[in-house]
Amino acid sequence: MSAPTGRVTPISGFPEYLPADRIVEQRFLDVIRETFELHGFSSIETRSIEPVERLSAQGEDADKEIYGVSRLGGSPDDWSPASGRDDARWGLHFDLTVPFARYVVENAGRLSFPFRRYQIQKAWRGERPQEGRYREFTQADIDVVDAGSLAQHFEAEMPLVVADVFSRFPVGEFVIQVNNRKIPEGFYLAIGLTDVVGTLRIVDKLDKVGPENVASMLEEAGASSEQAAACLALAGIRSADLGFVSAVRDLGVSHPVLDEGLDALSAVMSTAMEYAPGRVVADLRIARGLDYYTGTVYETALVGYESWGAVCSGGRYDALASDGRTTYPGVGISIGVSRILGLLLGQDLVRASRSSPAAVLVAVTSEESRARSVAVAGALRSRGIPCEVAPRADKFGKQIRYAERRGIPYVWFPGASRETDSDEIKDIRSGDQVAADATTWECPPEDLHPTVDRVG
Amino acid sequence: MSAPTGRVTPISGFPEYLPADRIVEQRFLDVIRETFELHGFSSIETRSIEPVERLSAQGEDADKEIYGVSRLGGSPDDWSPASGRDDARWGLHFDLTVPFARYVVENAGRLSFPFRRYQIQKAWRGERPQEGRYREFTQADIDVVDAGSLAQHFEAEMPLVVADVFSRFPVGEFVIQVNNRKIPEGFYLAIGLTDVVGTLRIVDKLDKVGPENVASMLEEAGASSEQAAACLALAGIRSADLGFVSAVRDLGVSHPVLDEGLDALSAVMSTAMEYAPGRVVADLRIARGLDYYTGTVYETALVGYESWGAVCSGGRYDALASDGRTTYPGVGISIGVSRILGLLLGQDLVRASRSSPAAVLVAVTSEESRARSVAVAGALRSRGIPCEVAPRADKFGKQIRYAERRGIPYVWFPGASRETDSDEIKDIRSGDQVAADATTWECPPEDLHPTVDRVG
Repeated sequence: MSAPTGRVTPISGFPEYLPADRIVEQRFLDVIRETFELHGFSSIETRSIEPVERLSAQGEDADKEIYGVSRLGGSPDDWSPASGRDDARWGLHFDLTVPFARYVVENAGRLSFPFRRYQIQKAWRGERPQEGRYREFTQADIDVVDAGSLAQHFEAEMPLVVADVFSRFPVGEFVIQVNNRKIPEGFYLAIGLTDVVGTLRIVDKLDKVGPENVASMLEEAGASSEQAAACLALAGIRSADLGFVSAVRDLGVSHPVLDEGLDALSAVMSTAMEYAPGRVVADLRIARGLDYYTGTVYETALVGYESWGAVCSGGRYDALASDGRTTYPGVGISIGVSRILGLLLGQDLVRASRSSPAAVLVAVTSEESRARSVAVAGALRSRGIPCEVAPRADKFGKQIRYAERRGIPYVWFPGASRETDSDEIKDIRSGDQVAADATTWECPPEDLHPTVDRVG
Repeated sequence: MSAPTGRVTPISGFPEYLPADRIVEQRFLDVIRETFELHGFSSIETRSIEPVERLSAQGEDADKEIYGVSRLGGSPDDWSPASGRDDARWGLHFDLTVPFARYVVENAGRLSFPFRRYQIQKAWRGERPQEGRYREFTQADIDVVDAGSLAQHFEAEMPLVVADVFSRFPVGEFVIQVNNRKIPEGFYLAIGLTDVVGTLRIVDKLDKVGPENVASMLEEAGASSEQAAACLALAGIRSADLGFVSAVRDLGVSHPVLDEGLDALSAVMSTAMEYAPGRVVADLRIARGLDYYTGTVYETALVGYESWGAVCSGGRYDALASDGRTTYPGVGISIGVSRILGLLLGQDLVRASRSSPAAVLVAVTSEESRARSVAVAGALRSRGIPCEVAPRADKFGKQIRYAERRGIPYVWFPGASRETDSDEIKDIRSGDQVAADATTWECPPEDLHPTVDRVG
C-alpha cells in the first residue's frame, strides 16, 4: 500500500459527503427502504454494468452519456467480438429501469408475478455536471410488473408510496403531479392533431419558453391557431380534486381515448384524495416521457424549489420488457435521491444532530485501566447502545471535548465515584452528571441514534 | 423505453440474487452496519472511480485487473491529458482502502482524528471469476486512522468488532487468526536472514506447497537448512492463548523487534481472550500482506470452509496516507461480503423465511371493495406492519396461494365475519383464522420481518 500522492481534488459530478451529511443520506435511504418494504416491495440489486448494445438502444442522447467499461491494458483489438473478451462492450447503467427489465426477462421463470420490486442503487451518466445533476447518483425505484397485463389499480398505488416516503423525511412541502397520457392523446386526436408525440414534445417546453412560443411552434408544425390555443388550454388545467374532468369537458372536445384517460386519472385522484390528501394534483401539463409511457405519469416537485426539476418521476408502460413470447407491462416511479440530497444539504436545509453514531464516549482514566472502559463499552453495546472508548487517557476535559467535536451526547466515567468505585455518566449538553451502571443505564430513545432534522 | 431484446444471459463474476437471497444479503449488511455503528464507526461512501494513476501504483498485478472507465463515443485522443477531458483516465476502484486514503488526505482539515470510519460498497476487479471470487463484489471495511501516530490498543479492537459481526449472523463457526509482522521480521533478522520480505513471501506459500517445498525454496534463496527449519518451526506455532510466547522463546532466538512483536501480539490476544473468548487464535503462519502491514495482521476463516480463503482480513499500516507534511497511520479490516454470501447461498447453508418483506396479504373480496382493503393496509402500515393488497379479487383460495408462494405468513380478510362485517386474519401456516382489527392487531415479532436462518 503506497500512500496517495499527486493531486487529491474532488471530481465534479461525483459527490462525496463528510460523516454528518452521510448520516442524513443514510437516514433518507433508510426511510425509503422501510417505506418500500411496508408497501410490500421486494429488494433486488442488479450488476452495475450492462452490454453496451442494451444500453445504447434507449434514446437519442443516451449514447454519449454512457460510461464504457473495459479492462485496462487491453489493446483496441480486445474490443472486437472476435476477441472473445466478454467485457469488450460493457457500460455502466444510467438508470435502474433498463437493468430491471433485463433482470425480469432473465429470471421470469423464477419470479412470481405481479412482481413488486424496489431497487436502490447508484447509476452513472456522462453529462455535464450542474446544480442538481450528477454523473454518479443514487436512484430509488419501485415498479410493479406483471406478465401479459397489469391491473390499473397499481397506477393509483404509486403516489401513495411516494407521499409516504416524503412525509417521513424532512424534505419540506412537496406536490405529486399526475397526468394520463391518454388525455392529451385523445384530445389531440379529437381536434385533428394526429402527430401526438410531436405535439407533446412541443407542449412539454411550456415551462421553458412560455405559452406564446409554444403556440407559434405548434403553428409552425402545422396546427391552426385554434388548435394551438386548445392545446394550451388543456395544458393549463390543474386541480387538487376531480375538477379537472369538467374543466376538460368545458373545452367541448370528446374522444374515446380521452374518456379512458379521464376515467383512469379520476381513479388515481380519488384514491389519492382519500389516502394521501393534499399531496397529489392532477396537472395536465405533465408530459414527462409521454412518448414511451402509456398511462398515468408522475412528476414530484419540492415546493419552493421547482427549478431543481422533478425529484421523483415515473409512469406506466405497456412493455417494460418482452422475451418474444410474453410481454411485461409495468408501472413505477424513481426517486432522485442524490438530487434531493444535493438540494437539502447544499442549501443547508437539513442537518444531522451528530457526526458519529456513538451515543456515549466511555472515558479512560488511565491506560492501565483501559480494560475497564472496554468492559463498560461491551455492556452498553450488548444492550444496543452505540459507544466508543476514548482514544487516549487524556485529562477528562480533553476527553469531553473529543465527544463534543463529534456531537456525542454522553461521556461515561468508570469509577468516577471514588468512595464506591461506581460509574457516573455526564450529559455534556446540560452538564448533569449522575451515577450509572452499564448493565442497567437507559439511553433516552431520542439520543440513541443521530436525529436528522429540518434547519430553522 | 424499448423492451430488452437480444441475449439476456448472466455475466460471470457479476452475481445477482433472486429476492429471497437478496433478503439474506440485506440482513448480513444490516448486521454489519449495526455492529460497526455500535462500535462507534462513522459511515462514509466514496465515488466508484479514481484517477487511474492512483489505482495503478498499488501493486504488481493490479493494473491488469483495473476496469477503465470513459465516455463512449470518445476518440482514442480523448485519453491524452491534452484533451482536457477529466474522465480521460478513470478506473473503478478495486478495494475501499485506496479511495479511503485519498478521502482522508482530501478532507483531513474537516475530519476529527482519530477517525473511525466504516464503508460498505461495491468494488470491481477484472480477474478470472472462480468460486468465491467475483469481478463485482461488496466489501465492508472499518479503519481507525490517526494523524501522526496511532495508539496500539486500536489493534486489539479490530478482532472484537469482527467477532461481534460474525456472532450476530449465521456464518457458522469462524476463527480470527492474528499475527504481528514484527515477530517474523525480528526472528528472521535474529537468525541472519536479512531479506525479510523475500523470506515472508516464500513462507506464505506453506499452505499451497507444503513444508518440504518451502524449505527447499528457502535454501535456494540462500538460507541454510537450519535457518529454513527455524522459519518452518516459527510458522508452525499456533495458540488460542498466550502459549505462543513460550513456544517462540523455546526456539532459542531473541531480537528486540521480535520482543516488540511478541508484546504487541500478547496485548491483542489478552484483550481477545477476555472479550471474544474462543474466537481468536495467534497463528504465526499468517503472512497476508506482511510486506506493507507493519504490526498486527488479521485473517478470518470459516471453519470447514478454509479452502474458500480469508473472508475477512486486514492489519496495521504505518502510512495509510500522507499529504507530504502529515502521515496517517491506520489499522483496519475488510469483510468479504460477496465471498461469504457466495458460500452461504451457493451451498444453501442459510435461507430467508420468505421472499417478500410483507407480513400480511390483505385479500380483496371484490374489485368494488378494493378501497376497504387499501384502508386496512394503510392502518397496518401506520403501525409498522409491512403488507400488500392482493393484486386481484380472485377466489380466496387463489389469494392464499399468492401469499404462500411468497412465504407471506398471514392473509387478512376484510368483512369476513358476515354478521358483524368485521375482519378476520388467517395464519396460513397453521390454518388458524381469528377476528382482527387493523388498528389493534399485534403481529408476532418473529413474523414482522423475514428471518434468516442456518439450514439444517
